Amino acid sequence: MEAQQNGTARVNGAARPAETPEQRSDPEGGQFSFSAEPSLEQIRRLQAEFTEERDWSQFHQPRNLLMALVGEVGEVAELFQWRGEVSEGLPGWSDSDREKVAQELSDVCIYLVELAEKCRVDLPQAVLRKMELNRRKYPASKVHGSAKKYTEYTD
Amino acid sequence: MEAQQNGTARVNGAARPAETPEQRSDPEGGQFSFSAEPSLEQIRRLQAEFTEERDWSQFHQPRNLLMALVGEVGEVAELFQWRGEVSEGLPGWSDSDREKVAQELSDVCIYLVELAEKCRVDLPQAVLRKMELNRRKYPASKVHGSAKKYTEYTD
Amino acid sequence: MEAQQNGTARVNGAARPAETPEQRSDPEGGQFSFSAEPSLEQIRRLQAEFTEERDWSQFHQPRNLLMALVGEVGEVAELFQWRGEVSEGLPGWSDSDREKVAQELSDVCIYLVELAEKCRVDLPQAVLRKMELNRRKYPASKVHGSAKKYTEYTD
Amino acid sequence: MEAQQNGTARVNGAARPAETPEQRSDPEGGQFSFSAEPSLEQIRRLQAEFTEERDWSQFHQPRNLLMALVGEVGEVAELFQWRGEVSEGLPGWSDSDREKVAQELSDVCIYLVELAEKCRVDLPQAVLRKMELNRRKYPASKVHGSAKKYTEYTD
Repeated sequence: MEAQQNGTARVNGAARPAETPEQRSDPEGGQFSFSAEPSLEQIRRLQAEFTEERDWSQFHQPRNLLMALVGEVGEVAELFQWRGEVSEGLPGWSDSDREKVAQELSDVCIYLVELAEKCRVDLPQAVLRKMELNRRKYPASKVHGSAKKYTEYTD
Repeated sequence: MEAQQNGTARVNGAARPAETPEQRSDPEGGQFSFSAEPSLEQIRRLQAEFTEERDWSQFHQPRNLLMALVGEVGEVAELFQWRGEVSEGLPGWSDSDREKVAQELSDVCIYLVELAEKCRVDLPQAVLRKMELNRRKYPASKVHGSAKKYTEYTD
Repeated sequence: MEAQQNGTARVNGAARPAETPEQRSDPEGGQFSFSAEPSLEQIRRLQAEFTEERDWSQFHQPRNLLMALVGEVGEVAELFQWRGEVSEGLPGWSDSDREKVAQELSDVCIYLVELAEKCRVDLPQAVLRKMELNRRKYPASKVHGSAKKYTEYTD
Repeated sequence: MEAQQNGTARVNGAARPAETPEQRSDPEGGQFSFSAEPSLEQIRRLQAEFTEERDWSQFHQPRNLLMALVGEVGEVAELFQWRGEVSEGLPGWSDSDREKVAQELSDVCIYLVELAEKCRVDLPQAVLRKMELNRRKYPASKVHGSAKKYTEYTD
């Protein structure tokens, strides 16, 4: 992957400006998608560099990272806590609140990646395997339109 | 990226078997890395297909997904709860426990991706921006080897 | 308080059957209250006995208990995750689901009490002090009817 | 209970100053206990008054309170996140860090009580019932000194 040879600057460079959320979705909100990069592996590598440059690896043991992950999920929850139901796309949220959501979800992602690394879990492949398990556990033909748990479907 | 042209089947296909964690790390554990795929966008798309096939989009509102994320983080915590300190690489853990960690971290990742999508957050790019903020907030020259918070370093 | 003199057996005894939630609230749901006992100290003591009888104190270090607390909060979240907004009193929930909520909230309470004990925090008194801080931080005259954070009120 | 007739002032009054954690434990730390008051019901009532005076009941629906609970557990986790293993009594922690722990655990307790109330769960009695279930699920004779889960004990 080219970006791995050219390093951070390429991935994060001005040559490939991030589109805004607005640019990425059509007016109906039906075509929203993520940018192709960075990949989970690129995030892992960038975070490893960040941690190494600060000599912070000594603190990044699995349970410390898990605590940090819990802390960041808590910060996401605080953004949603007094709002009642929130619709897809966060209609009515200010730009500032949207940016906070983006930042806190990013923190969750960064610690999740680092925790997986320290647990020697190949996160992208593990996700593929789990999705395959989910497809078998919740067959579309049986669970269509229902949120009931799998256990309630077994005869 | 080739997989994006060839679609889901290629990414998830038997033609590209996942390496085991053991294959991906050298004996010293220093060279562990994630597979290049699936990307966060590929995960997003696969999960959107999974949800649509089951007509579950109606349940996947932002706060429902956030609750699900909290539930999955709780399941990760349960795997670590009575173990005391755990070292990098989870030495001494059974294959079964390692597989559980892989599955629960995957669940966290899947719901994180879907929550970001419903919030219209371009997660990979948001992570890049947050990492840049972190680099400025914690300059390597000032925080080297210390876990103190940024606020304690100002002035 | 009578139960403190008579000890655990009295508190937990069949002689004082728990009222059902229905008995404790009037039709309008306005008069719901908790039973006077057990107190937080009685819960702490009962849980200490439970742990000691099983020789589990060795596992109940602060961070282990915090992980367990996170796990139990996750289980509460799983009960609420696909339901959309839920009104006070959980209208429409089955008796079985209500019992699950009661059990998971109880688990959160038990681990919270034990974590406070291991941190040498006198939880009931700490709660009183925190409530006093909250009263000063959010003066009724300034924040009436608004969920905005304190910081947004300071001139 | 006398305090319920005399109101908040009695429970929180200067006539009954809180002992410090130091006063409550002997040098070996073996005799630590909580104050007898406030009870969970007193906390519930005080918090209901606090919420009503601010007209905040409209925001305190079950899922909002659950989000708030998750946020506060996250704040506890942040206090423990980069510390590695922590022993009972938090040896070496500063008074300021201990006070933060006391405050965040208190916030967890306050939201837990309010969430239970909105779910019409008689929390103290539910805890008693759950403890009885736990005693039967983990018989002392079978699980002594082991952290294995109940399921691993069933033949």
